[in-house]
Amino acid sequence: MEQKALRKLLEKVSQGDLTVDEAMLGIKSMPFEDLGFAKLDYHRGVRQGVSEVIYGDGKTPEQIVEIAEHMLNKGQETVLITRLDKEGASLVSETLPFMYCDIGKVGIVGKMPEKRTKEAIVIATGGTSDMPVAEEAALTAEALGNKVLRLYDVGVAGIHRLFAHMEQIMTAKVIIAIAGMEGALASVIGGLADCPVIAVPTSIGYGASFGGIAPLLSMLNSCASGVSVVNIDNGFGAGYLASMINHIGEK
Amino acid sequence: MEQKALRKLLEKVSQGDLTVDEAMLGIKSMPFEDLGFAKLDYHRGVRQGVSEVIYGDGKTPEQIVEIAEHMLNKGQETVLITRLDKEGASLVSETLPFMYCDIGKVGIVGKMPEKRTKEAIVIATGGTSDMPVAEEAALTAEALGNKVLRLYDVGVAGIHRLFAHMEQIMTAKVIIAIAGMEGALASVIGGLADCPVIAVPTSIGYGASFGGIAPLLSMLNSCASGVSVVNIDNGFGAGYLASMINHIGEK
Amino acid sequence: MEQKALRKLLEKVSQGDLTVDEAMLGIKSMPFEDLGFAKLDYHRGVRQGVSEVIYGDGKTPEQIVEIAEHMLNKGQETVLITRLDKEGASLVSETLPFMYCDIGKVGIVGKMPEKRTKEAIVIATGGTSDMPVAEEAALTAEALGNKVLRLYDVGVAGIHRLFAHMEQIMTAKVIIAIAGMEGALASVIGGLADCPVIAVPTSIGYGASFGGIAPLLSMLNSCASGVSVVNIDNGFGAGYLASMINHIGEK
Amino acid sequence: MEQKALRKLLEKVSQGDLTVDEAMLGIKSMPFEDLGFAKLDYHRGVRQGVSEVIYGDGKTPEQIVEIAEHMLNKGQETVLITRLDKEGASLVSETLPFMYCDIGKVGIVGKMPEKRTKEAIVIATGGTSDMPVAEEAALTAEALGNKVLRLYDVGVAGIHRLFAHMEQIMTAKVIIAIAGMEGALASVIGGLADCPVIAVPTSIGYGASFGGIAPLLSMLNSCASGVSVVNIDNGFGAGYLASMINHIGEK
Amino acid sequence: MEQKALRKLLEKVSQGDLTVDEAMLGIKSMPFEDLGFAKLDYHRGVRQGVSEVIYGDGKTPEQIVEIAEHMLNKGQETVLITRLDKEGASLVSETLPFMYCDIGKVGIVGKMPEKRTKEAIVIATGGTSDMPVAEEAALTAEALGNKVLRLYDVGVAGIHRLFAHMEQIMTAKVIIAIAGMEGALASVIGGLADCPVIAVPTSIGYGASFGGIAPLLSMLNSCASGVSVVNIDNGFGAGYLASMINHIGEK
Amino acid sequence: MEQKALRKLLEKVSQGDLTVDEAMLGIKSMPFEDLGFAKLDYHRGVRQGVSEVIYGDGKTPEQIVEIAEHMLNKGQETVLITRLDKEGASLVSETLPFMYCDIGKVGIVGKMPEKRTKEAIVIATGGTSDMPVAEEAALTAEALGNKVLRLYDVGVAGIHRLFAHMEQIMTAKVIIAIAGMEGALASVIGGLADCPVIAVPTSIGYGASFGGIAPLLSMLNSCASGVSVVNIDNGFGAGYLASMINHIGEK
Amino acid sequence: MEQKALRKLLEKVSQGDLTVDEAMLGIKSMPFEDLGFAKLDYHRGVRQGVSEVIYGDGKTPEQIVEIAEHMLNKGQETVLITRLDKEGASLVSETLPFMYCDIGKVGIVGKMPEKRTKEAIVIATGGTSDMPVAEEAALTAEALGNKVLRLYDVGVAGIHRLFAHMEQIMTAKVIIAIAGMEGALASVIGGLADCPVIAVPTSIGYGASFGGIAPLLSMLNSCASGVSVVNIDNGFGAGYLASMINHIGEK
Amino acid sequence: MEQKALRKLLEKVSQGDLTVDEAMLGIKSMPFEDLGFAKLDYHRGVRQGVSEVIYGDGKTPEQIVEIAEHMLNKGQETVLITRLDKEGASLVSETLPFMYCDIGKVGIVGKMPEKRTKEAIVIATGGTSDMPVAEEAALTAEALGNKVLRLYDVGVAGIHRLFAHMEQIMTAKVIIAIAGMEGALASVIGGLADCPVIAVPTSIGYGASFGGIAPLLSMLNSCASGVSVVNIDNGFGAGYLASMINHIGEK
Repeated sequence: MEQKALRKLLEKVSQGDLTVDEAMLGIKSMPFEDLGFAKLDYHRGVRQGVSEVIYGDGKTPEQIVEIAEHMLNKGQETVLITRLDKEGASLVSETLPFMYCDIGKVGIVGKMPEKRTKEAIVIATGGTSDMPVAEEAALTAEALGNKVLRLYDVGVAGIHRLFAHMEQIMTAKVIIAIAGMEGALASVIGGLADCPVIAVPTSIGYGASFGGIAPLLSMLNSCASGVSVVNIDNGFGAGYLASMINHIGEK
Repeated sequence: MEQKALRKLLEKVSQGDLTVDEAMLGIKSMPFEDLGFAKLDYHRGVRQGVSEVIYGDGKTPEQIVEIAEHMLNKGQETVLITRLDKEGASLVSETLPFMYCDIGKVGIVGKMPEKRTKEAIVIATGGTSDMPVAEEAALTAEALGNKVLRLYDVGVAGIHRLFAHMEQIMTAKVIIAIAGMEGALASVIGGLADCPVIAVPTSIGYGASFGGIAPLLSMLNSCASGVSVVNIDNGFGAGYLASMINHIGEK
Repeated sequence: MEQKALRKLLEKVSQGDLTVDEAMLGIKSMPFEDLGFAKLDYHRGVRQGVSEVIYGDGKTPEQIVEIAEHMLNKGQETVLITRLDKEGASLVSETLPFMYCDIGKVGIVGKMPEKRTKEAIVIATGGTSDMPVAEEAALTAEALGNKVLRLYDVGVAGIHRLFAHMEQIMTAKVIIAIAGMEGALASVIGGLADCPVIAVPTSIGYGASFGGIAPLLSMLNSCASGVSVVNIDNGFGAGYLASMINHIGEK
Repeated sequence: MEQKALRKLLEKVSQGDLTVDEAMLGIKSMPFEDLGFAKLDYHRGVRQGVSEVIYGDGKTPEQIVEIAEHMLNKGQETVLITRLDKEGASLVSETLPFMYCDIGKVGIVGKMPEKRTKEAIVIATGGTSDMPVAEEAALTAEALGNKVLRLYDVGVAGIHRLFAHMEQIMTAKVIIAIAGMEGALASVIGGLADCPVIAVPTSIGYGASFGGIAPLLSMLNSCASGVSVVNIDNGFGAGYLASMINHIGEK
Repeated sequence: MEQKALRKLLEKVSQGDLTVDEAMLGIKSMPFEDLGFAKLDYHRGVRQGVSEVIYGDGKTPEQIVEIAEHMLNKGQETVLITRLDKEGASLVSETLPFMYCDIGKVGIVGKMPEKRTKEAIVIATGGTSDMPVAEEAALTAEALGNKVLRLYDVGVAGIHRLFAHMEQIMTAKVIIAIAGMEGALASVIGGLADCPVIAVPTSIGYGASFGGIAPLLSMLNSCASGVSVVNIDNGFGAGYLASMINHIGEK
Repeated sequence: MEQKALRKLLEKVSQGDLTVDEAMLGIKSMPFEDLGFAKLDYHRGVRQGVSEVIYGDGKTPEQIVEIAEHMLNKGQETVLITRLDKEGASLVSETLPFMYCDIGKVGIVGKMPEKRTKEAIVIATGGTSDMPVAEEAALTAEALGNKVLRLYDVGVAGIHRLFAHMEQIMTAKVIIAIAGMEGALASVIGGLADCPVIAVPTSIGYGASFGGIAPLLSMLNSCASGVSVVNIDNGFGAGYLASMINHIGEK
Repeated sequence: MEQKALRKLLEKVSQGDLTVDEAMLGIKSMPFEDLGFAKLDYHRGVRQGVSEVIYGDGKTPEQIVEIAEHMLNKGQETVLITRLDKEGASLVSETLPFMYCDIGKVGIVGKMPEKRTKEAIVIATGGTSDMPVAEEAALTAEALGNKVLRLYDVGVAGIHRLFAHMEQIMTAKVIIAIAGMEGALASVIGGLADCPVIAVPTSIGYGASFGGIAPLLSMLNSCASGVSVVNIDNGFGAGYLASMINHIGEK
Repeated sequence: MEQKALRKLLEKVSQGDLTVDEAMLGIKSMPFEDLGFAKLDYHRGVRQGVSEVIYGDGKTPEQIVEIAEHMLNKGQETVLITRLDKEGASLVSETLPFMYCDIGKVGIVGKMPEKRTKEAIVIATGGTSDMPVAEEAALTAEALGNKVLRLYDVGVAGIHRLFAHMEQIMTAKVIIAIAGMEGALASVIGGLADCPVIAVPTSIGYGASFGGIAPLLSMLNSCASGVSVVNIDNGFGAGYLASMINHIGEK
């Protein structure tokens, strides 16, 4: 895309339609807009395949609304807001078309994409308490046009619960394995599946869990191949990456 | 596959071709073979899509040869041996058809797969010293039937070196970003590419690198989306996962 | 036992058979013998139910021989020596009746106890490389009069290998689960078994395994009940504790 | 048990009482029930010898009540709820027969088991502040049918306090040693007792206690044999494991 | 300065204008004043080139006012107060001429220096959330008489945003690079600029950011030359050091 | 002391004034009293030279009052209560003669000892914010009968402030050096003084101070001889140890 | 510089001297040369003000010679090689004009720059054992055209040794403070000097020094303003940065 | 002492015997001598009460000999050399009167002080393997004129061994408690003794001992009063500090 723009610009210079100074200005003018407090990147949708996401933590509702409106005005149909607390959500909902998921702390401005992928991203959690992270991942994936299959509370302490879903695990295209405590779920799923497994350690646990270090290390050291890891509690990152993989080969 | 086997077995019981005791035995007999010191898993190729790999570290050359021979006898054409030192390699080469990569400490028994993927896995490293990890990744990927594009020594200290390959990065299907020290390469590539980026921290560095903790944390905290992380120095794991992703949508 | 000795001593004082000074001396004279470099504790067998074990690391072969001879002279039939390297072993074998296990680095002076427990201690390892720790545990348990059932290389990356031994795991009296890397084996076994599971993290692994911290944390955070943990690579401790539990209820 | 069920199922197939498809369904239908937010496991009592426990932390009182009612309906007589705060407790007590221990934050739905073990589990703490963890352990053990002997505030700073209970320690079947700060209690008890000692580090302390890391490391490195460790503040885990051991040999 | 004072004092002794005892007293009398709770150091301005700064955290507004008044009375024109919360600020503003920056939590008593340096200190941040640290740095620099150029939210996830300011970065005299998460900004800027880069890790992030450890390690391991690091969130320290460097060669 | 008691007891047995059973009981009856929630140790004053101290943190005001009253009843004149918050203090003051130091969070029940040591314990702090820890140390020392010399805010950033007190430091009998941040004060004082220096790291600081780890490590690695370290923020421990040393050689 | 090249290129396009395709190629052709194993960056001297340095660790002598020769051929007069061991040095000296510093493990190919800065960089070390790091810094600075003043073994344990050089410290333009153990030297110098202090923690020490973590944290938490920190043992980085600062204002 | 020197110098100025310039020179000329590689401090004996000690690690035998000779020439009778390996020792012994302790790696140049303190420093170790650290402490103490009582291998695993020495512990003036593994010895001794206890963690142990971190944390968190801690394996520091305390009140 940028290659083409450069070529066009150079052609114009070549044809005398553009002076050298104009061309230098054109090459330098970067594709983002300055709101003063955050530099939006509208080309990102083009460049990275999906739309800009608003990381809500540390932003005021007013800032969020302003950013979201700019995005909608530029033509984006779905704006995902992660790490958004209830109060922020209720403020956003006053001025914009809005849905909010309490558990995952995720807001959607605009409408969810209708067209979904043929195959579902499988999202498995070790326990009920991992649901906030799982929902952040699931809603991210759905906002990016994916079908999602939720397998919650299938941790290794009662491993037969996981095995009830053996077929779905063994035929999946991409799986997100979310677990706190000892994080063994990722290894067990990684040992069964033959697709990429994105492991998300959660800060669920206490004592020697050290806020998620235990499952993080456990997942990094997984003896199963095909497992990679994102940051502790990073449901969004897992959903985003899973979506990337899930869209490969789709038309 | 196992579903079918179970169905067949149950049908035989149903038709009286198998007694209950025989059926119980059949269900219990697991698909692996016991060499005494390591339980091989021949079904894995079927179940996970690729062949068993031998992790050479901590195994004697004799054990490696024995395992490799069993694999070849079972019909496998390529056996990958990782973390194999020079002496071990020279011993293996005495009895088996064998290639050895000194830098990556990787051995290949049998022949490399001829058919390669249409698209290449891009493997980028921050420095020259990351090459051992990169070659482990590259040879793993090639042994699993992938084309590989090597971009070595393109770290952020001289970021224009990376930008010379912008087009390859922006159009890649999957990228492996390997870096020690501060590990910023993964974030920079992740910010440019719109495909999955598998980040491999390496133990290259000194002092506050703490054997790879610095790039590990850096990569886990990447502000770029689409980045996931494998263990420090885990070139094999990155190559294996990249191969999984690269084969999606190929026929 | 000591209660009786004290009573006897007091009775002698009461009957005038012992002066007050003699009695004070008697109470103070402690039940150990001073070799100059290490204070042996012959009463320990009485007090703790098993014989003194020699921790070989950091002792010269001469010191080990001297300690072992003292023990034998006091009537002990089996002396266990852990963390004993090959050279030390060959030196010990020159002067004492001796068996040596190379893998577990364990030596046995004297003869192995003939009488064994009715039930076997189950010892499971995640991989082949965990064998040194496993053999330290196994030989410790055998030297303390236990039957042992070895299930090696049944890690979660190929979880069906573990399931081939489901019956032995589900009916065990006590299990030792030994694993490096992500240490998930302990949780999986803990979720299946209904007996105490002693988890032993090993220093097997690399990178973010951090010399055994990863499996250690994983095992401490096990979501399965009945799991407790000993020090990294502490095969002896696990074998000793398992023996304690295995002897409960035996006559 | 499951072996029998499988045999029966296969016999029915063999006798034509069950079609192959029905059999496959039967094998797959797992023994748990889906409430939507948590998968209960009623067979666990059979499989692991005790009843399901509700980990209260992170669950709403409504969820807890719902889970507990399901358990009672299935015939369970005692339901243990750990990590339950006061408000949750008062809400649960409105709808269910209920006892609550403020210090240990443990609730009991239903009635405590009447039949107790012959021998008591000894629970020792280093200080008064370790009582919350100790009571979680004690009530867990009592809910599982054990007698309990509490020895609180017998830490090593005034070691003679511990020695007043020497006889109970030297004749115990299993001991739980709970301590924060430097955690030396476990080693001292481990050096005196000849039974399994379950060490529980607590987060009691300040500064270089690092939330329990100091006693955790101390206990893992105990030079006394027979000591194993559970997670920081994990009173439940210690009580559960001690109960397992205490029931061995009981009829 | 002190050399001169000593010389003068010795000359007086030599000329009999000062007794030996008076001279000893004079040498001992140190150049600070004791308020009881904090020892001010009025000579510091002379010795270190800038005025005393009040670190507001942990001081009551009354203490701050008292210290600031003493400083003003001694002739200082600008008093910088860092880590000052809103309430403290409003209390200080009641009794002293005062400006307050809410984001950076910085107060200025007196008036800002009018004369500014010829060249601006460039302050770049990775994200919007790093602004509090950046403003602490910026206001510190301005209070010390520097021009400041703010480049906020130019992190590596959208690296073209940084490149829009390439010229300012490549011609700067000193740059402050502030970033949380993976902290790659410092390396990228360090690779582009040929001036000292002061890296400030921030505690912005979550999970494996560990309160700023991730960017701290990342910055310490920077493969770019000319980068040095100050404490996590230490905007003041960076601003102060940058001012030192920026004043070199100015007249 | 106990030696004498034992001798007396044995003499009584010898003279028939005590039966064997009574003697056994006597030896076992330990010198403490059980209040149910904490085992007081009245002999400690005899055995360790000072009176029992109440660690207030985690105890209710009622418990504190009860313990203190028992102590007073047993004849103790000064009861020190550390880590006591304001509310607790006001409750204690309602029923007992009581003084309270707000900064050090220390309460004194009864009256301060009148007789003081000839020499003062020197207590130096790096900054004003270290005062809470310093006052805990100072009041502990005073309650144990020591004179105290306070040198606050003499940290190394303005090292001349410390040097104003050079004579007191170079002639001290024992010094307590209290500092947060980088903790260099202990080394500087240790390099100047020729008496024991007790270093107390404090949790004062932010970022890479890590709650006191930075000064703790700094002090443990002090290149000055004669420096030893107590726990982070442990003013009481430092005051107690300094008192022990300060009383040596006093009559 | 690059701005000019771009302008020239565009002018040629504008004048028809360059086709669009040639121009695109020209923009893409980056200013470095590919040796196969390392991408040299000849423009760096221009862009960053000094010449490329060869980090010797992990490179073979052959690679080093090859890189150095390329640099000399391109007209560079001084090539600095850091982390070069003796054997490597002796190999390099066979083919190139070469000086080698054994202590600092630094080699210089070509000749040292003759023209030196007017002012000297002050390099102070805590102990004799810090000399290897100090010499790496000193030779780097000298190779970059700076005068250097070495103040070795002036650590705080004998602080008067440092004070003998008070005048040099108080009038310096930039200081490098190198220390292991507790690293207090940086704070003490930072408190005395009014110029930038570059702190270098060294791995000198043992036990709780943790390979340099203790001085690293100490230096990061320095309460003295104007102190910034580089990686553990990073003498080169400190020398390079000090040179940058020392050249400001020089003509 | 320095006070007197200053007074004398000032008196000379006052009497005209010294010019101002000479006086300034005199004040600046510091009391140490520069050997080029290490600045000796002959006044230290005066200022700190004992003679300079040579830390052998990282110094060549030649350097050690040179430093020791300077010390002897200045009149010192005993020079202590710590961390001196065997080879170094044999080299030193060729040119100087010399004794060497292999276990503690301590050398003594000259003769041991004859006059010893009235009371002995008690040095207790947990195990035999702690002897190297203990001997470093013991020989340091002896070289500084102290009697020493060695109680080795009295760790808490067999606590009765420690109790055999109860009287010596309860009447000691100062105790050094040395232990690796869990380091509980310091707390137990601290709970029994009423004198300062200097705790020395050792790096003896494996796995979760983490090179001495476990006993270090354990000792820092000791619940016994009067315990302070020195660096891991720092026998010298403990011996030196114990000597300081032991000399108090001696004439």
